[in-house]
Amino acid sequence: MAIHTATLADTVRNDRPEDLAWQADKNHFIHPYTDFTTFEREGSQVISEASGVTVTDTDGRTYIDAIAGLWCINLGHGRTEIADAMGKQASRLAYFNTFGHSTNVPASLLAAKLAERAPGPLNHVFYSTGGSTANDTAVRLIHYYFNRLGKHAKKKIISRNDGYHGSTYFASALTGIHGVHLGFDRISQDIVHHVSAANLYRRPQGMDEAQFCDFLVDELQQRIHQLGAENVAAFIAEPVMGAGGVLVAPAGYHRRVAQICRENEILYIADEVVTGFGRLGHWFASEDRFGHVPDVIVSAKGISSGYCPLGATLFSDAIHDVIAVPQAPGGLLSHGFTYSGHPVSCAAALATIDIIERDNVLGHVREVGPYLQARLKELMRHEVVGDVRGDHLMAGIELVRDRAGRVNFAPELGAAHKVFTAARKRGVIVRPVGNVIVLSPPLVLGKADIDRIVDTLHEALAEVSPALLAG
Amino acid sequence: MAIHTATLADTVRNDRPEDLAWQADKNHFIHPYTDFTTFEREGSQVISEASGVTVTDTDGRTYIDAIAGLWCINLGHGRTEIADAMGKQASRLAYFNTFGHSTNVPASLLAAKLAERAPGPLNHVFYSTGGSTANDTAVRLIHYYFNRLGKHAKKKIISRNDGYHGSTYFASALTGIHGVHLGFDRISQDIVHHVSAANLYRRPQGMDEAQFCDFLVDELQQRIHQLGAENVAAFIAEPVMGAGGVLVAPAGYHRRVAQICRENEILYIADEVVTGFGRLGHWFASEDRFGHVPDVIVSAKGISSGYCPLGATLFSDAIHDVIAVPQAPGGLLSHGFTYSGHPVSCAAALATIDIIERDNVLGHVREVGPYLQARLKELMRHEVVGDVRGDHLMAGIELVRDRAGRVNFAPELGAAHKVFTAARKRGVIVRPVGNVIVLSPPLVLGKADIDRIVDTLHEALAEVSPALLAG
Repeated sequence: MAIHTATLADTVRNDRPEDLAWQADKNHFIHPYTDFTTFEREGSQVISEASGVTVTDTDGRTYIDAIAGLWCINLGHGRTEIADAMGKQASRLAYFNTFGHSTNVPASLLAAKLAERAPGPLNHVFYSTGGSTANDTAVRLIHYYFNRLGKHAKKKIISRNDGYHGSTYFASALTGIHGVHLGFDRISQDIVHHVSAANLYRRPQGMDEAQFCDFLVDELQQRIHQLGAENVAAFIAEPVMGAGGVLVAPAGYHRRVAQICRENEILYIADEVVTGFGRLGHWFASEDRFGHVPDVIVSAKGISSGYCPLGATLFSDAIHDVIAVPQAPGGLLSHGFTYSGHPVSCAAALATIDIIERDNVLGHVREVGPYLQARLKELMRHEVVGDVRGDHLMAGIELVRDRAGRVNFAPELGAAHKVFTAARKRGVIVRPVGNVIVLSPPLVLGKADIDRIVDTLHEALAEVSPALLAG
Repeated sequence: MAIHTATLADTVRNDRPEDLAWQADKNHFIHPYTDFTTFEREGSQVISEASGVTVTDTDGRTYIDAIAGLWCINLGHGRTEIADAMGKQASRLAYFNTFGHSTNVPASLLAAKLAERAPGPLNHVFYSTGGSTANDTAVRLIHYYFNRLGKHAKKKIISRNDGYHGSTYFASALTGIHGVHLGFDRISQDIVHHVSAANLYRRPQGMDEAQFCDFLVDELQQRIHQLGAENVAAFIAEPVMGAGGVLVAPAGYHRRVAQICRENEILYIADEVVTGFGRLGHWFASEDRFGHVPDVIVSAKGISSGYCPLGATLFSDAIHDVIAVPQAPGGLLSHGFTYSGHPVSCAAALATIDIIERDNVLGHVREVGPYLQARLKELMRHEVVGDVRGDHLMAGIELVRDRAGRVNFAPELGAAHKVFTAARKRGVIVRPVGNVIVLSPPLVLGKADIDRIVDTLHEALAEVSPALLAG
């Protein structure tokens, strides 16, 4: 493969790794969620350094990272305490497997710390390497659980439209953002069924919030009835839907859904990949923010502040006690990943927990979160903003061409992407998702950072609005 | 969740993290591939430190790690160069997403280095976090590829009995070690089909190696004919089957299978999670060891020497050029993981590649590999050893109660597990898999380490043989 190497050396001005990176990336790196048409032309922005709430690219431009990497650098960039904990662990014991009766110190201590911080009965942790594998694990072990109970038909999973649950083949089947399936196959359509998103902004006309909640609860009940409760294993939901556009459910929704699940022996999987570890001001949002205790909590991202890949699926005592009885004499729980409980990943998570506690990061989020939400509401003064919503440090700003009719811009206009570009030009990185601008800043940002983000969005919206409304 | 914390504190003698770990693990950590019956009684061995080819537990016992963690710590433990590279990267830029047109320096440079080292046309890398997600990605993107070509029916995947391809729900469906499915559901049985393992030791009676190769090739051809070539997307195989018991295919097998695949427009996925990065003395085994160029190579484990979770799926130019044309105007390649191209994981991989080259580790493996294989052959002097096989630094020792008849011990005897226990008592960790003892030591071990491992296995086999043969 000599050709590409030569190309690489020829087309860059010098051989700093930073300069080689752009061309190497363009030639060899298949990016997630790329538009290849523009990629071929433009290549990538190479982010090379970061500190606190900012990232810097190889051209020396610095930006406020208002998306925390991708909902994950919760404690901000350049935390030498986490980096040192990782480096030290990698020197001391980088890796040994945790299969069978083998373990390591950080994975064990982290399991206990997760159990302490999770709602009451969620005391048992299965590790993986991110949200996708953690959701995948949740369903695989729940299916195993019902097999152990002799309920072999109880396997269907109810997910929600606009829910995002990851990108393994099965996790993508759980995902209900239907646009992301374009061109891709869906597996397991016999297993996964979707109900409506808890999308208050797009609720049927004439309904108020309480009526919409009734509507959603009723829909779920009917779906369970239609599928047969004896065939439904679990319901999976994010406490606040993330990549689907930051959708906050109607008041009481999660509690009522959890009640229906309990009545039908359907397990409730709370996908807290985004909402866990402080983004909503608590370790986990399900109980502390929405008043219900799920059977399974899925965690990733903030759990290690994004410093090292880690996923964790927390199971209740009741589930554990069933799956902890072998399926045959000498039978093994034959599920798991090489990097389940990776010492370095778990060391990053332990350091993350220490800092969150020492610096009272949860208290900080409960203070600045409402400030962010309040300031963002100001953006409603722009005619193209149809809705501003969120909870603490996750927020979505939905763009519309007709506010009264709640009519979105045509996708090909790339309205949110234009706001993203205008904001980036001004030094703030946000995330365009369909017609929604998503914010999920590091939890440690201050009010001045929030002001800078919101002021920049004002300017960006002012810049792009005329062309959008004219188009 | 205060109760378990109290339990934790009460039941350990002091509060060194190492001592807390055992109890925390027992209470809260659901291990992959655990036998819960004995786990409840015994708990885990807590590995806390490691250096070179050894690991040390919290009781201060040191062992030769003859499995390299789990086929992955290829450069040995305690490599401060890798740890420092990780720590430095985590401080400089721990994480920013690589979605869309965003990248980082280590992920970009690594993509180019992988392309340089992979066979000719395999120039495009999709990153994930381990072997399971990398295999999952291979199939998901191959399905997408055939959709882009308008061949919507071409979706079936032919895998092999005793093949191991991971533990996401879909990767587990690819896995052909049928014992691991006990109690678990299998999804996608309409997609995944299995043909015979390339198990020379268990070949039909009366066949020589060449005839067995003909048999396997003929079986594959018939299966393709039966399924319809127009319905078959890919064939997936490990160059040497790993967790299935270290099975080396008959001479010429891979080349002939690859030829059949080409004739039928079936893509060849080489799962090189174990065989890549030096274990067989080359960067990748497919071309350099077995003489064929696959369409997709799946890499993980040794790629980062296990120091940080990383998976990489390498695609050919031909596949890339098809999937790099959007499925719709503005369409995105909507697949990918938060930690695709994680900077710290990629920094660990770059350091790994540097060390492999600087220290000529591939040459070292080509020197000590044959020595290991030769010395292991001595174990045939034990009546319970039916077969010794492998390639360079992966080896399997199959135990039998009747060598002439190639009859295995009953599973409940746990024959290989008894050898594992007897070897561990003597300071060497091997891996029991069914009736096979698996070895996959760090690539950097010396001949003295090999002598120690083989001598220990002699002693362990001598110890357990009488009871096994009497039982």
